[in-house]
Amino acid sequence: MDQLPKCAANYVPLTPITFVKRAALVYATRPSVIYEGTRFTWQQTYDRCLRLASSLRSLNVGKNDVVSVLAPNIPALYEMHFAVPMAGAVLNTINTRLDAKNVATILSHSEAKIFFVDYQYVPLASEALRLLLADTKQSPASESTIPLVVVIDDVDSPTGVRLGELEYEQLVHKGNPNYVSADIEDEWDPIALNYTSGTTSAPKGVVYSHRGAYLSTLSLILGWEMGNEPVYLWSLPMFHCNGWTFTWGMAARGGTNVCIRNTTAIDMYRNISLHKVTHMCCAPIVFNIILEAKPHERRQITTAVQVLTGGAPPPASLLEKMELLGFHITHAYGLTEATGPALVCEWQAKWNQLPSNDQAKIKARQGVSILTLADVDVKDLGTMTSVPRDGMTMGEIVLRGSSLMRGYYKDPEATSKAFKNGWFLTGDVGVIHPDGYLEIKDRSKDVIISGGENISSVELESVLYRHPRILEAAVVAMPHPVWGESPCAFVSLKQNSNGGKDDVKESDIISYCRKNLPHYMVPKKVEFLPELPKTSTGKIQKFQLRALAKTYKASEKNMGSKNRGQATKVNKGSKGYNSNPHEQILALSRL
Amino acid sequence: MDQLPKCAANYVPLTPITFVKRAALVYATRPSVIYEGTRFTWQQTYDRCLRLASSLRSLNVGKNDVVSVLAPNIPALYEMHFAVPMAGAVLNTINTRLDAKNVATILSHSEAKIFFVDYQYVPLASEALRLLLADTKQSPASESTIPLVVVIDDVDSPTGVRLGELEYEQLVHKGNPNYVSADIEDEWDPIALNYTSGTTSAPKGVVYSHRGAYLSTLSLILGWEMGNEPVYLWSLPMFHCNGWTFTWGMAARGGTNVCIRNTTAIDMYRNISLHKVTHMCCAPIVFNIILEAKPHERRQITTAVQVLTGGAPPPASLLEKMELLGFHITHAYGLTEATGPALVCEWQAKWNQLPSNDQAKIKARQGVSILTLADVDVKDLGTMTSVPRDGMTMGEIVLRGSSLMRGYYKDPEATSKAFKNGWFLTGDVGVIHPDGYLEIKDRSKDVIISGGENISSVELESVLYRHPRILEAAVVAMPHPVWGESPCAFVSLKQNSNGGKDDVKESDIISYCRKNLPHYMVPKKVEFLPELPKTSTGKIQKFQLRALAKTYKASEKNMGSKNRGQATKVNKGSKGYNSNPHEQILALSRL
Repeated sequence: MDQLPKCAANYVPLTPITFVKRAALVYATRPSVIYEGTRFTWQQTYDRCLRLASSLRSLNVGKNDVVSVLAPNIPALYEMHFAVPMAGAVLNTINTRLDAKNVATILSHSEAKIFFVDYQYVPLASEALRLLLADTKQSPASESTIPLVVVIDDVDSPTGVRLGELEYEQLVHKGNPNYVSADIEDEWDPIALNYTSGTTSAPKGVVYSHRGAYLSTLSLILGWEMGNEPVYLWSLPMFHCNGWTFTWGMAARGGTNVCIRNTTAIDMYRNISLHKVTHMCCAPIVFNIILEAKPHERRQITTAVQVLTGGAPPPASLLEKMELLGFHITHAYGLTEATGPALVCEWQAKWNQLPSNDQAKIKARQGVSILTLADVDVKDLGTMTSVPRDGMTMGEIVLRGSSLMRGYYKDPEATSKAFKNGWFLTGDVGVIHPDGYLEIKDRSKDVIISGGENISSVELESVLYRHPRILEAAVVAMPHPVWGESPCAFVSLKQNSNGGKDDVKESDIISYCRKNLPHYMVPKKVEFLPELPKTSTGKIQKFQLRALAKTYKASEKNMGSKNRGQATKVNKGSKGYNSNPHEQILALSRL
Repeated sequence: MDQLPKCAANYVPLTPITFVKRAALVYATRPSVIYEGTRFTWQQTYDRCLRLASSLRSLNVGKNDVVSVLAPNIPALYEMHFAVPMAGAVLNTINTRLDAKNVATILSHSEAKIFFVDYQYVPLASEALRLLLADTKQSPASESTIPLVVVIDDVDSPTGVRLGELEYEQLVHKGNPNYVSADIEDEWDPIALNYTSGTTSAPKGVVYSHRGAYLSTLSLILGWEMGNEPVYLWSLPMFHCNGWTFTWGMAARGGTNVCIRNTTAIDMYRNISLHKVTHMCCAPIVFNIILEAKPHERRQITTAVQVLTGGAPPPASLLEKMELLGFHITHAYGLTEATGPALVCEWQAKWNQLPSNDQAKIKARQGVSILTLADVDVKDLGTMTSVPRDGMTMGEIVLRGSSLMRGYYKDPEATSKAFKNGWFLTGDVGVIHPDGYLEIKDRSKDVIISGGENISSVELESVLYRHPRILEAAVVAMPHPVWGESPCAFVSLKQNSNGGKDDVKESDIISYCRKNLPHYMVPKKVEFLPELPKTSTGKIQKFQLRALAKTYKASEKNMGSKNRGQATKVNKGSKGYNSNPHEQILALSRL
C-alpha cells in the first residue's frame, strides 16, 4: 500500500490556525470575544487576525521570527495567538509579573523582532528596553537586537503613553483582510515560545510545534468534556502556556472569550453573571478571591461554571463552598513543557454516590493522561521501572507523546537532560492508584529520604494546610545524624480572633502532625515565618528554605520558637516576594 | 529553532492503538464490551487484543498484510479493530450483505492473508472461497491466493460448522498477553481497507492511515459532543467505515460497547433499556424499526439516547416521534473516503426556541465540517470557484484534510481522479446557508439540468417522500426535446386501508408536486414500481432507472400508469435486491 503517497488534499499540516479559519466559516455570526464594551464575531476576529498578520509581514516579520508581547487578558493578546503564526512567526507571551531584568533577558534570548506592549506595562517595558540597549552597547558582538515596539492602547489608556510610533489597532486597521495566511509547510514548525519561571535555574524557552499545540488543544477540550458554545472567562493568564491552549480551543469550539484585565472579585462576578460564563481556568488562590468577595462585589450566578484548576489540591471544605456557589471543579496537572495540563482528573459518575469528603479526596488527584499523550508512567527513581499501581509506591512521573514541547530554545543540554530513554522526565514524584488515577506527591528534588523512607513534602504540607490556623506551609529536608534527612516545616499563621498569631507553638503543630501522620513523617522541626519566600510568579522558593534548614543541623537541640527571628530575617532578604493574590494566580505547583 | 529535532518522547506516531492501551491503564475496571452474557473490562479487552495480535504474528501476519473479516457486530469484530493493527496488519471488514462473488473479488483484490468468518456467514464464505479457488486454478499467474480461514464461534453456534482448523477464541486463548505491539513507524502507515459498495462502478478499496483514523476519531467525539462514559449501542455495522470510527472512539472515551447480532426492535429496546444506552448511530430506516415495534418488543427508555444518523433527512413528524421516545437525533454527512462523517449538524442553543418544523429543517442539514478537516467548500461545477453562501447556489462539495483516505488500493487512476487541485471531490452537490451550514442537494451525476436550471433529485424526492402514500421514491433525468432533460419520478406505494395500492394515479402525484414545488421541478413523468431496484447494500440503483427513463423519450406521449408492467419487469430482473429493513441500514446516501 506504499503506492499511495501524501497529497495536498489528504495530508494537511496540523495547526491551530485551522480552528480560527473554520470558526470564521461555520460560527461566522457567533460572538468570539467580549471585553467590556467591545464585541467581535468569529468572522470579525478572523478578519482582524488576517489584517494583523499582513501588517506583521509588512514589518518584515517572517518564518521563525519571534514576536513578544507583554499584556493582560485583552482581545489583542487573544488575536495574536492566531495572527502571529498566520504571519509564519512564533508567539512569545511574557509573564507580566516579571521584573525589567527578566523581561530584558527574554527579549534578548528570544531575539524578539517585534515587542507588543499593553499601555499598562509601558513603564516595565521601557525599563527592560533600557537594560537591553545598555547590554547591546556593552557587548556589541552579542546577539541582542532591539525589537520594534508596538503599544496596545485601551479605552482607558492615558494619552501620551508612547514607546515609538506604532499602535496595535492601527496595524489591524491598515492590514489587508485578503491576506493569505503563511503556509505551514511542516507541522513541526514552531508556533510559540514560553519561558518557564525557573524556581531553581535561569528561565528556559519552551518551544511548541504547531502539531503539539493542535493536539493538546483537542485533548483538553475532550478531557474537560467541554461542549459546543462555551462561554469562557479569562481568569487564567493567556501568557501561561497559551492559556492552557484554550486560546486556540475557543476557536475550535466556536466559544466566546470573555476577557478581563484584572482578576478581581467584582470583575469576575460581573462578567460571569452578565455573559453566563460556563467555563474558566484558574489557580486555587482564585477560589479565595471568589469566596471572600464582599457583598457589593457579588452577583447571582445562575448557570453552572466548570472550573479547571491546577496546583495544590484544595481542601474539601473549600470545594464544597465553591460547589454551593455553582462552581464545579476539575483538577489537572501539567507543566509548560507539556503545553499545559497533561493529566486531568476525569470524573466518574459512580463517584457522585460517595460522601463529600471522599469526593474531595478523589478531586485532589491529578487523574488520567489527556488523550494525545501516548503514554504516562510513574517510574522508580533508581531503576526507572514502573511502580506498582498501589497508590503508595512513589516514582517519577514521565510523559511521552506528540503534545510535548520540541525542546528548550538554544539549550541542547537542558533539552537532552529532559528527554531520556524516550520519555520526558517531569521531575515530579507521584503514585498510581489501583484505578489508574495518578496523584502527585512532590517534586523529585523535594522528596525527603528519611531512614530509607520516601517522604512526600506535598503530602506533609497538605496535612499542615488542614490545620485551622496555618495559612502557608512548606516542608524541606533537614540533615539528620541518624536518618540522613528529616522533615523540617516552615509555616505562616492566620491571625487569631484577637488579631494575634503567637498563641500557636511548635509543639502544638508537632502534636497535631502526630495525630494525622505516620510517626516517621512528623516534622522534626517547625519554623514560623510571617510569610514564606516566593518567586515573582508566586511559587514558594524552597531552595531558600532548604538553605536555611541546612544551618539547623549543628544546633538541633536548641531549635525552638525562639529561632523565629532568624528565619524572618532571611525571608525579608528574599527578592520578588509579593502576597498580592493576583500574582498568586500563577502559584500552581507546575502549571 | 530548527535545532530541536524530533525524538522518541515528543514525536509519537498518531494511532488509534494508543486509545486502547490508555483505556486499559486509565479505565481498567470499567466495562468495555457487553454482548448478551459476555462482559469485558478495558483491561481484559486490551489483554485479549494483545493475545490475538501475537497469534496473528505466529501465523506470519506482518506489516501491511491484509486481514479480512466477515462478521456482524460481535465482540470479535470489535477486538480486531485493535488486534489487527497491533500486529502491524491492515483490517479489512467486509460488508456481510455482499454476495459470494463480491466477497471473492475483495479477498482477491486485497490479497487477504487471513479471513475471519463468523459462524453465521460460513456458507457465504465457503462459496466465496470456492470461487476464489476456481479463479486461481484458471489463471495460476494471477495474484489470487487463498487466505487462511479462522471461524468465529458464538454461544449459539451449531457444532460442526467448520471451515478449517482455526477458531477465534482459541487464537485469543493461546496468544501471549505480554506481546509488545508492533511499532507504528509512520502514522501514514495503513490501518484499514474498506471497499465501497460501488453504485456505478466496481468496488474500490479505500485505504485509511493510522493518522487519518486517529484524527477522525477525535473529531467525531468532539463533533457529536460525546462526553465520558458513553454506553454505545452497535446499531450501525462496524464494517461500515469502521463504525464511523466509534470502534476506536469507544476506547478513546472509555465507553461501553453494547454489541448486538441483529438490528431488530426487540434487541435494540432490550439493550437500550438494560444497559442505559446513551449513544447510537444508524440509518434513518432504523427509526422505522424503533417506531413500528410491537408492544411486546418495546421497553421503557429512561435515559436520553443521542442518535447520529446520515443519509436522507428524516421528515419532521418522524423526528418528533423519535424525540418523544427519548431519541435525540443529529444529522451527519460523510463517505467512506472521509473515514465516515465529514460534516455534522452541530446544534445551536438558540434553535431550541424555533417551532419544531423549523427545527426539523435545520436538522435536515448536513451541517459543519468536523474539526480535523482542514477545509470544506462548495465549488461551482464548471469554474471550481466557491459558490456564494446563499443557501441556493449549488456546487460540488470538496474536502481537504488529514482525516481523508490515503487513496484507492491498486487504483492510481481513480485516486488521482478523486484528488484534484488539492481537494477531494465528493461528487455530491450542495449549498451553503448564510450561517455556514451545508446542505446536500444531490450526487453530481444525479443533478437534472432542465432548460439550464439545476434540479436536485434529492430535493424532489424529499417532497415525494412527504406524500402520505409514497413508500419509496427516486428521480432521474429523462431526455426532453425542448429542455434537454426533465425529471422522471419512480415511486413505490404503501398499501391503503383496503390493502390495495392502485388507487393513486400519476396525475395525483403530479398535481401534489405542483402544489409543493416550483413548476420547472415538477416531474414530467411518474412511474409506479412495486419496489425500486437496489444494490445488495440497499442503495437505490439509479443507473437502472436512468436506463429505463431513456427509453421513454420516443413514446413520451403514451407514457401513463399502463406502463407499470414494463417497469416491473426491469425491476424483477435486478439482482441483489432485498427489502429487509436490516439491509437498508446501509441505505445512507453516502455513509
